[in-house]
Order: sequence, then structure tokens, then C-alpha cells
Amino acid sequence: MENILTVFWIVPVASVVALGMALYFYLQMKKADEGTPRMREIAQHVRHGAMAYLRQQYKVVTIVFIVLAAIFAVMAYVLHMQNPWVPFAFLTGGLFSGLAGFFGMKTATYASARTANAARQSLDGGLRVAFRSGAVMGLTVVGLGLLDIALWYLILNAAGVNSLVTITTTMLTFGMGASTQALFARVGGGLYTKAADVGADIVGKVEADIPEDDPRNPATIADNVGDNVGDVAGMGADLYESYCGSILSTAALGATAFVGCGAMQVKSVIAPMIIAAVGIFLSLFGIFLVRTKEGATMKQLLRSLGVGTNVSAVLIAGATFAILYLLDITNWVGISFSVVTGLLAGVIIGQATEYFTSHSYKPTQKISEASKTGAATVIIKGVGTGMISTMVPVVTISVAIMLSYLCANGFKLEMTAQNLSMGLYGVGIAAVGMLSTLGITLATDAYGPIADNAGGNAEMSELGEEVRKRTDALDALGNTTAATGKGFAIGSAALTALALLASYIEEIKEAMARVGQTMTDVAGNVIEATKATIPDFMNHFQVNLMNPKVLVGVFIGAMAAFLFSGITMGAVGRAAEDMVKEVRRQFREIKGILEGKATPDYSRCVEISTRSAQREMIFPSLLAIIIPIVVGVVLGVAGVLGLLVGGLAAGFTLAIFMSNAGGAWDNAKKMVEEGNFGGKGSESHKATIVGDTVGDPFKDTSGPSLNILIKLMSMVSIVMAGLTIAF
Amino acid sequence: MENILTVFWIVPVASVVALGMALYFYLQMKKADEGTPRMREIAQHVRHGAMAYLRQQYKVVTIVFIVLAAIFAVMAYVLHMQNPWVPFAFLTGGLFSGLAGFFGMKTATYASARTANAARQSLDGGLRVAFRSGAVMGLTVVGLGLLDIALWYLILNAAGVNSLVTITTTMLTFGMGASTQALFARVGGGLYTKAADVGADIVGKVEADIPEDDPRNPATIADNVGDNVGDVAGMGADLYESYCGSILSTAALGATAFVGCGAMQVKSVIAPMIIAAVGIFLSLFGIFLVRTKEGATMKQLLRSLGVGTNVSAVLIAGATFAILYLLDITNWVGISFSVVTGLLAGVIIGQATEYFTSHSYKPTQKISEASKTGAATVIIKGVGTGMISTMVPVVTISVAIMLSYLCANGFKLEMTAQNLSMGLYGVGIAAVGMLSTLGITLATDAYGPIADNAGGNAEMSELGEEVRKRTDALDALGNTTAATGKGFAIGSAALTALALLASYIEEIKEAMARVGQTMTDVAGNVIEATKATIPDFMNHFQVNLMNPKVLVGVFIGAMAAFLFSGITMGAVGRAAEDMVKEVRRQFREIKGILEGKATPDYSRCVEISTRSAQREMIFPSLLAIIIPIVVGVVLGVAGVLGLLVGGLAAGFTLAIFMSNAGGAWDNAKKMVEEGNFGGKGSESHKATIVGDTVGDPFKDTSGPSLNILIKLMSMVSIVMAGLTIAF
Repeated sequence: MENILTVFWIVPVASVVALGMALYFYLQMKKADEGTPRMREIAQHVRHGAMAYLRQQYKVVTIVFIVLAAIFAVMAYVLHMQNPWVPFAFLTGGLFSGLAGFFGMKTATYASARTANAARQSLDGGLRVAFRSGAVMGLTVVGLGLLDIALWYLILNAAGVNSLVTITTTMLTFGMGASTQALFARVGGGLYTKAADVGADIVGKVEADIPEDDPRNPATIADNVGDNVGDVAGMGADLYESYCGSILSTAALGATAFVGCGAMQVKSVIAPMIIAAVGIFLSLFGIFLVRTKEGATMKQLLRSLGVGTNVSAVLIAGATFAILYLLDITNWVGISFSVVTGLLAGVIIGQATEYFTSHSYKPTQKISEASKTGAATVIIKGVGTGMISTMVPVVTISVAIMLSYLCANGFKLEMTAQNLSMGLYGVGIAAVGMLSTLGITLATDAYGPIADNAGGNAEMSELGEEVRKRTDALDALGNTTAATGKGFAIGSAALTALALLASYIEEIKEAMARVGQTMTDVAGNVIEATKATIPDFMNHFQVNLMNPKVLVGVFIGAMAAFLFSGITMGAVGRAAEDMVKEVRRQFREIKGILEGKATPDYSRCVEISTRSAQREMIFPSLLAIIIPIVVGVVLGVAGVLGLLVGGLAAGFTLAIFMSNAGGAWDNAKKMVEEGNFGGKGSESHKATIVGDTVGDPFKDTSGPSLNILIKLMSMVSIVMAGLTIAF
Repeated sequence: MENILTVFWIVPVASVVALGMALYFYLQMKKADEGTPRMREIAQHVRHGAMAYLRQQYKVVTIVFIVLAAIFAVMAYVLHMQNPWVPFAFLTGGLFSGLAGFFGMKTATYASARTANAARQSLDGGLRVAFRSGAVMGLTVVGLGLLDIALWYLILNAAGVNSLVTITTTMLTFGMGASTQALFARVGGGLYTKAADVGADIVGKVEADIPEDDPRNPATIADNVGDNVGDVAGMGADLYESYCGSILSTAALGATAFVGCGAMQVKSVIAPMIIAAVGIFLSLFGIFLVRTKEGATMKQLLRSLGVGTNVSAVLIAGATFAILYLLDITNWVGISFSVVTGLLAGVIIGQATEYFTSHSYKPTQKISEASKTGAATVIIKGVGTGMISTMVPVVTISVAIMLSYLCANGFKLEMTAQNLSMGLYGVGIAAVGMLSTLGITLATDAYGPIADNAGGNAEMSELGEEVRKRTDALDALGNTTAATGKGFAIGSAALTALALLASYIEEIKEAMARVGQTMTDVAGNVIEATKATIPDFMNHFQVNLMNPKVLVGVFIGAMAAFLFSGITMGAVGRAAEDMVKEVRRQFREIKGILEGKATPDYSRCVEISTRSAQREMIFPSLLAIIIPIVVGVVLGVAGVLGLLVGGLAAGFTLAIFMSNAGGAWDNAKKMVEEGNFGGKGSESHKATIVGDTVGDPFKDTSGPSLNILIKLMSMVSIVMAGLTIAF
């Protein structure tokens, strides 16, 4: 147990505090009034739909987990390709991620009507209910994440596993459970929400000419359910994975970088966990700062959220210096700057996302203006803008990689074993820095769909003009936070994937050691696999850019990103068509719906969305798991590293393109609806609706699913390292 | 002169024969009757517009060439960062490429009315005039390309340059001239054609409800001019560059692989040239095989073109074995198989492109069917299909890379210096194999716009129903050949870029040797730069996937592809808007246009397209040149190799996505026009027109421009090697 320093106990304490505060916010929210009977009824419809979906999804996921756990068990106990803890670590990762999704969504579905009801009194009231309910999600994710990490760290130490390298690489595999859960949550949730949304829009807005969230539209409940399963549960699972992945891979990198350094090694392993733990306290502080006053403008609302997140970020930056100084870690100033680099990169990507997707700025305004020449030019402009918008985030991440690498190793460019390990530890801890404010950033994300649903509830319950205006303001704010949240999710996924890349190398070394394979070092000597430095490893497997296996890997990786997006796009198209047919059928067969005299069959649409999403998520999910396995078996370690790098670079860029194009189309439409270029009902409006509808799967299905793809391919490669080595 | 074997003389002979036959086909075509006075008049309008555009473009390009040549002269004579031949080689590459574009386009613009006129007699007559005129382009490109190569090979030998490595790396830089010319031709031409096409469609088809190519549409002449400057001149320059680039880089790879092997080295250098020369004769044979009979169905027309290209391909495959056997080159069987791999990859990519873009198959039919639920689902399905369609070409190219590498080095996976050089020579010669049939494949490509223009001419000249039906059949055939031609152009660009990647390494070694820099080999010894093997080089510059410079390079490369596409998309949007405004103005101000009583001002639209294209092409072009220079200076050799690999993988995949999505949208619209899902004028038709309009810049501007980007970034890096080394 000498690997546990006293200061480590802050980690489980922080996680318990986070969970306690989540419970507190939850109970506080539940105490609030849910409003009129009509409001309660609608909220109940949405809640039942969402829970029914989640139950169905967890059924499918449970089967997948049983199968995968069995495979890992065979690999661990029969083939000895993995260590004995893996199947269990895998299962807890999945379980905890699933719990976070469940609690977050339960809270969100209870909160929407209460938000609408609070908005009947004041804007600030609505904001507080919605935001604090969002905070339940944020705090549950970070709380459960850190709890799982702390538990495994204590268990493995208690079990007498001595090598910190073995402990950290074993813990990494619990990320595989989180990844698998996230895959289904993001892909399934993304498909669900857009099948419902696109279907509802096509028949409702375009054909029947009724507004969004109109109770006459049979798909409207499904649409609101979708916001919850996609944007709350899906986003939560995605970031849960990034959060754990970044902490675990940084710990693993620390264990390698400081191997043989005694206490310093322990400190480097727990440093990312402690930064995350302190981040929880400071996020909580930020959450309490968020409030607004009646009649606040959009700018003021944005500022009130901004105050919370920015204060947290600044405090964490300062706290990091203190933590690393007190831990007395080698080069603590440099490593602290690496953390700050990550934090800053997150802020810049968020700002850039806002610039390219908000109609307060030129790019989206131009897309809106293009509606004067029709839908085609709206699409062309949107695609162009989305592609151009990739520049800032890619350059930012590139600079962040270089800076965090150089800060951590004392600005040494020469690629010695020592410089490389220290540098990569810096890249990993930059990812931890970016995600250290997750408690509050995820609260602002989860706030979005709650506000959106509150608006839907107000519309369907036919609340007064004034209330509708307040919920509209809250909803518009949610659109902006959703866009920046997506940028943040992608950025953190990229840094996490990069850290996982380095962890893959450690896992391959462990796997080789298990079966007694040796390596050839740079000088040509045969050495034990675990003794190999990164340059030795690169030399042994010839992981350079002229190796055709690496090149082919990069090609396949880039293609995988496009293929995965293409399949999810196609799936949304198919699922939306099912929905369109059902809504048309109801309009035709249930007389009086459009006149408001008959109630549509909402639950039938909820069922259709659920079924389509479950059916369509299987193939892309399998693909994401199978591609890295096949490449590993056929092309070996060099091919896998090529695959991961190609998939990461192309997937990251593609994800930004799709998310930003989608966000910009959404707001270009809003700009027309605000009365520009002809306003609501004009030809321009129709043109921007086409853009918005195309943008829906871009920004809410395919784009975000790519985050999972790039992390999951790394995770699968890590877990399957033993298999790759056997071939 | 001992580096010239007698058999080499087949190279200049073949090029002279190609040019002679091009002249013969040209004169034969000119003898044909151009038809009625109306037909002549329209043809003249298009011809003048096209030539005016080309003159304007060449003016801009001349300035760029003077500036770049001056920079190279300073680098060569003042800074000694380049050898003294470079500025001249650069200029001839640009000049010859420009000439090929000029002759090809002149022929095409003379041929369209004559094709329409020949179609008044028979379908076969029309096909022959159009196809043989297309062959002028094909033969001019291969003829001028090989002539330039032969001349420089003779000049450098005559000048007493002894080292074959120096000769071949010097010749590579003439590819830079071809690249620069191709950049402006593809980007400028692509912008021109789509500004006109999108503009004409939006006002003509959507707003004024008049058919395509209607003489009442003021943009119709500009649209027809666009087909010539984009699809003839642009495509020609693109493939001219790939053709020369693949031959030259393979020669350079041969010179390195067989260094110190005496005559074997010479043989390996001239082998790709001889395969290309024999390819010319066999392409000519294939050209004479193309004919059809009256009332031929689409299938029969396709088969008649297929007979020509397939017979040529099979004969070249056989001839390659004979050539390499007679040259008695080491492992001639294996290297021959590498050539066959390239040929086969070209065929497979072509077939896959047809499958994903022709409405004879499911994918495009589904897009067409999606029109029942509106424009948005057409776009969603098209984007999804385009992304999924990347799988076959990427896997094909990946397999081709591995197979051609392994065939050439005798299936040795271990990455020794010898195995690597031989393997990369195999990849290069696979590219040569794919392009060896260029004489005939480019003829089928250039045929497309000629047939398209013939249809336009027939429509505007109001020729009879029967003639229109024949030109429609010829045009439909052209759409399919255009799609497969694009697949072929992208595939060959990828293989060529890969070969250039290897050449970059040689150029860096040469540049280091010029300034007396040394390297550290794998064993840690200091060696002369030119003595470094590829593993030494990789080790010295740490070009492995854990080097942050490489990773950042890959990120920037992927982003460059998206950024470049985004900018060209935006440019088309802007240029099309200018055109829309002008057409609307003419409809408004010139009374009687729509009633057919007044003639629109065609030349004003031609001017606008020209001006917009010239204005918009500057920025993306500069970007393509500047990015590799900046990355070279900031991140060095490792960063540049990362950039090129990232740009290649992401650019290749993105290009296929965009080209195929565009082609599929085009044919989905055609399917509706043939009477499906409501037929012409229905809501479905309007939805597919939106798809087609979005697809225009996808398939004809941004997609094809990416071919240039991936090759040009390599070329710029090669030419600027001296600069990278200085920092």
C-alpha cells in the first residue's frame, strides 16, 4: 500500500461530495412545483418515453457487455492475453457510466416542467432550476468517474499489485467499459433524437405548416424525449469517457515516465486525480455563482453562465500550481503550464465554435443571407463555412500538443526516451486540465436540453406569451452552450485519444512481457519488452511514415471516420423516413388532429424512434469495434498506430466540420425567424429549414459520434493488445 | 551519355507519334461540317468565351510563374539551396502543361457543333467525332508529357550530369511547374464552370422554370464555356501532372534503389518511361477500336468505350512483362505484378465509382427516392452515400500499396533499407501502371464535355427531336465516363503523391549534401547525407508517430484538405451569387428575353464568370503553396512528412466523398427526370435539383481540386527542401 499517499484521500472525498451535492440539487429540484395538470401530463409523457428508451437501450447494452466480458474473461483466464482484473474493470466502467446517464436523464425529465413553471414567476427562477438540474448531471459524471478511479486504485493496491505500471494499465481497461457504454449512448441517442426531430420537422413545419413543439404534431413528444436521450444521456456518457480516459491514461503515462523514481512515480500517478478532485470543489463554487436578473438580455444570460465557468477555470489554473508545488513533483512549473495549456485550448475552441455558429457573427449571417437564392446556396455556404471552421480548433489543438509537450519536458525537442515520456505526460495532463472544469461545463451542456424541453412544455401547455418569451430566452441560451459544449467535447476527445495512443504503447509492452516476447532496442540489442523506451519501441515495430503498414493504417483510419459518419447519416435518413410515414398516417387516419380536436398517438412515435435507433445503432457500433481488431491482426502494431493517428486527425476535423455546419444552419434559420430576409413563412425561411434539417444529423448524430469513434478505436486497440501480439 | 540505352529512344518516338496522331485527329475533325449558321454562331460564342478565359488565366499564371521562377533562381544561384537547372525545368513543366490545356480546349470547342452535326446523320458518327476529339486531348497530354521528360533526360545527360540520382531529382522539379499550372487550371476552371452552372440553374431551372441549355438563359453560354475550361482544360492539367509526377518520381526511386548497380540503375530509371511509351501505342490501338451502331442502348455505348480502354489495359499488362523481361531488370516478374496492381486498382476504383453514382444501382436510386420527403432528405442521403462510398477506393488503394510494395521487393516485410527502396519503387511503378492507359482514358474523359456541349448546341440551335435524342444519349454516356474518370484521377493522384513522398526524402538528402550537412545513421554513426538509407533518415529526423511534430503535421494536413475545400465551396457560392444577380438583372431590364423575342447578353455572363474565377482562385492557391512552406520552416522534415501523409489520407477520402456525392445527386435528378417519383416539374424534381446544385461544386470544384492539393503540397515540399534544411 506504499503507493497511496495521504493526500490521495481527497479523491474519494471529492467524489462523495460531488455525488452528495448532486443528490442535494436533485431533491431541491424535486421539491419545486411541476405546474398545471397539463404541464405534468406532458412531462410525464416525455419522462416515460425517455425511460422506456433507456430501459430498451440498457437491455441491448447488457447483452453486449456480457458477450464482451466473456471474451475478456477467456482472454484473461484461458489465453492469458490479459490480466485477471480486466473483465471486472470493464464491467464497472460500463455500470458507472450507465448509472451517470440514468441519473442525469431522470433529473432532466423531472426538471423541464418545473423550469417552465418557475419561468412563470421569473427568468432567474427558470434559469436556476434548469441550470442546477443540469449540474446534477455534471456532478454525477465527475463524482462517479472519480469514485470508480479511486476504488480501483485502492483495490489494486490492496490486492498487492506492486508495479504502478501494471496498476495504471489495468485501470485503463475500465475505460473500455465506459467507451462501450458511451458508444451506444451517443450513437443510439443521436439516432433517436434526430429520427424524431427530422421526421417531426419535415411533416410538421414543411408539409403541415405548424410550428415546432405544436401538440398537434404526433412526433413532438418523441422529439422532446430525443433531446434527453441524445443531448443529456449521450453527451454525459461521452464526457464521462473522456474524463476517466484522460485521468487514467495520464496516470499510466506518469507511471512510465517516472519508472524507478520511487515516491515521484506515485505522485505523478495521483497528480491528475488530485487536480480532478480539486476541480470538483471549484466547479461547485462556480455553480453557485450562476444567477441572473429579470429581463436579462441574451448577452447578460451568456455572461452569467460565463462567470461560473470562467471563475472555475481561473481558480483551477491557480490551484494546479499549488497542487503540483505541494506534491513537489519534478518540473512542477512546466507541468502546471501544460495543464493551463489544456484549459486555455478548451476556452479558445469554445470561443471559435461560438464565432462560427452564432448569428451574432458574419459566417452564420452569410449562410442566412444565402437563403435569398434558395436552399442549395444555404447548403453550399454551410458546408463551406463548416469546413473553414476546422482551422481554429485544429491549430489550437496542434499548438496545445506542442506546448504541453514542451512545457512538461523543459522545452527539449530532441526525442530521447526521457524527453518523450515527460512530454507525453504533459499532453495527457493538458487533457486533464481541459476536463477539470467538467463539473460545471457539463452542467451548462445539460442545461440546454432541459431549457429546450421546458420551452416545448410551455408551448404544448399553451402557457402565456410572457412565459413563452422567458423559456425562449432560456432555450436560445441553451443553443449557444450546446454548440460550445460540442466543441469542448471534441477537443477533449482529441487530447484524450492522443494520451490513449501513448498508453497503447505501454499496453503492448505489458502484453509482450506476459507472453515472454522480447524487443530489439535502438542499438540493436535484445531487451525485455517492459524495458523498452518509446524510441526502442518505434524502432522495433518500425512505426515510421515510410512503413507501408503505417501508411495504409492512416488511410484506413481516415476512411473509418468517413464511413462511420456516412452510416450514421444514412441511418438517420432511414429512421426519419419511418417517422415521416407514421406522422403522415396519423394525419390521414385520425380525423381532426390538425384542427386540434383529436389527440395524436404520441406513444406510437416514441416506439418508432426507439425501435429505429436500436436497429440502426448495431452496425456502426460493431464497425468501430471490429476495424481496430482487424487492422491489428492484419497489419500489426505499426498498422494500428497508423490507424489511430489517421482516425484521430481525420475524425477530429470531420467532427468539427459537421458540428459547426449543423450549428450554423440551426442559427441561420433562427435569424430568418427573427424577421430577417423575409422572416417566418417566406421562401427564405423554407430554404433555411432545409439547412437546419440537414444540419440536425450533422451536429447531433454523426459529428458527436465521431468523438466516441476516435476514443473507442484506441480503447479497443489497448484491450486487444494481447491479440495483436499473438499474430 | 552512358546513362542512355538504345531502347530509351522509344520514349521520344512515342511522344512524337502521340502528337502526330493528335494533329491527325484534329485536322480530321476540322474537316467535318460545323452545321447550320445558328450552330456555328453558338459554337463561336462558346469558343470565344473559352479562349478569352484561357487568355485571362494564362496572364495570371504567367505572373505567378515569373515570380516563382525568380524565387527559384535566387534559391539556385544566390542561396545555393537548389541546383541550377531548377528554374528552367520549372518553366518548361508549366509551359508544356499549358500547351496541352490550350490544344485540348481548342479542339473541344471546335468539336461540339461538329458532333451535333454528325449526330444529325447517325449516333456512331456523333460518337466518333466526339471521342476522337477527346483523343486529341488524351494524346496531347501524354505526348507533351513524355516529350518533356525525354528532352530533360537527354539534356541533363548531355550536360554531363553524371549521377542518375541528381538527374532524376532535378527532373522532379519540372513537375512543380506542371503542378502550379494544374492548380490554377483546376481551381480556376472548377470555379468558373460551377459559378456559371449553379447560377444558371438557380435562376433558370428553379425560378424561371426554363430547361437547361435554353437560349433564353443569359448564363447558358457561360455554362457551356465552363464545361470546356473546367472539365477539359482542368482535368487535362490535373492528369498531365499525375502522369509526369508518377513517371519522374518512380525514376527517382529507381535511381536510389539501384544506386551503385551500374546498368541496372539506368534500366530502373528508364523502365517507367518505356512502359509509358508503349502505353501510348496501345492506347492508340484502343482508340481505333471505339465505335458503335445506330440505336445503341446506353449499355452498348458504355461497352464500346469499355472495349477500347479494357483492351488497352490488358495489352499493357502483357507488354509490361515483356518490357521488364527484355530489360532484364532484377525481380522483373514481381515488378511487373506491381504494374498490374496499379492497373487493376484503377479499374476497381472506376467500377466502384460507377456503382455509387449511376442510377442503375441502389445507392443513387435511394437518393432519388428520398426526394419524396423533400430536399433535406435528398441531401442527408447523398452525404451519407458519398461518405460510405469512400470505403472501396480507400481499401483498394491500401491493398494496391501493400501488394505493389511486396511484389516489387519479393514479399519481404522486414524494413531493411534494401526492402524499403525496392518496395517503394514498386508503389511508384504501380502509379505508372495505372496511368499508362492515360492516352485512352483521358480521351473518354474529354469526350464527356464535348458531348455535353454538343447537346447544348443542339438544344440552342433547336435541332429536331431525333438529333436531340442522339446527343442526349451521347451526353448521358459522358456523365458516366466523367464520374469514373474522376475516380481514376483521384486514385492516380493518391499513388503519385505517395511516390512523391518518397522522392521528398531523396530531395532532402540532396539538399543536405549541397550545404554539407551530415546525418546520424541507425547505428549512431555520422554519415554523408546522400549515403543515408530510408531507415537512417527516419531515425535521424525521428519521423515516427510519437513525435509531436509528426502528429501535429498529420493534424494540419487533414485540416488543410478541409480548409481548402471549404474555401473553394465558399468561392463557388459567392461567384454563383454574382451570376444569379446578373441573370435576374437581364430578365428584369432586357424586355422580351423570356418570350424569346430579345437576345440575352451572353458575353456579360461570360465576363462575370471569368472575373469571379480569377478573383477567387488566388487565395486557395496561395494557401496550398504556403502551408507546406510554413510547416517546413516551423516543424521541419518530420512535420512536413506528417503534413503530407495527413493531407494525402484525409484529402483522398474527402475528394472521393465529394466527387461521388456530387455524381450521385446529379444522376438522382436524372432519374426523376426520366419520370420516376413524379417526374419533371414535380416537388420531387425540385428536391433533386437542390441536390444536384449542391453537388455541382462538390464534384466539379472542391473534390477535383483536392487532387491537386495533395500532389502540390508534396511538390512544394520537394522544391523547398533547401529552405526546410536551412532552418
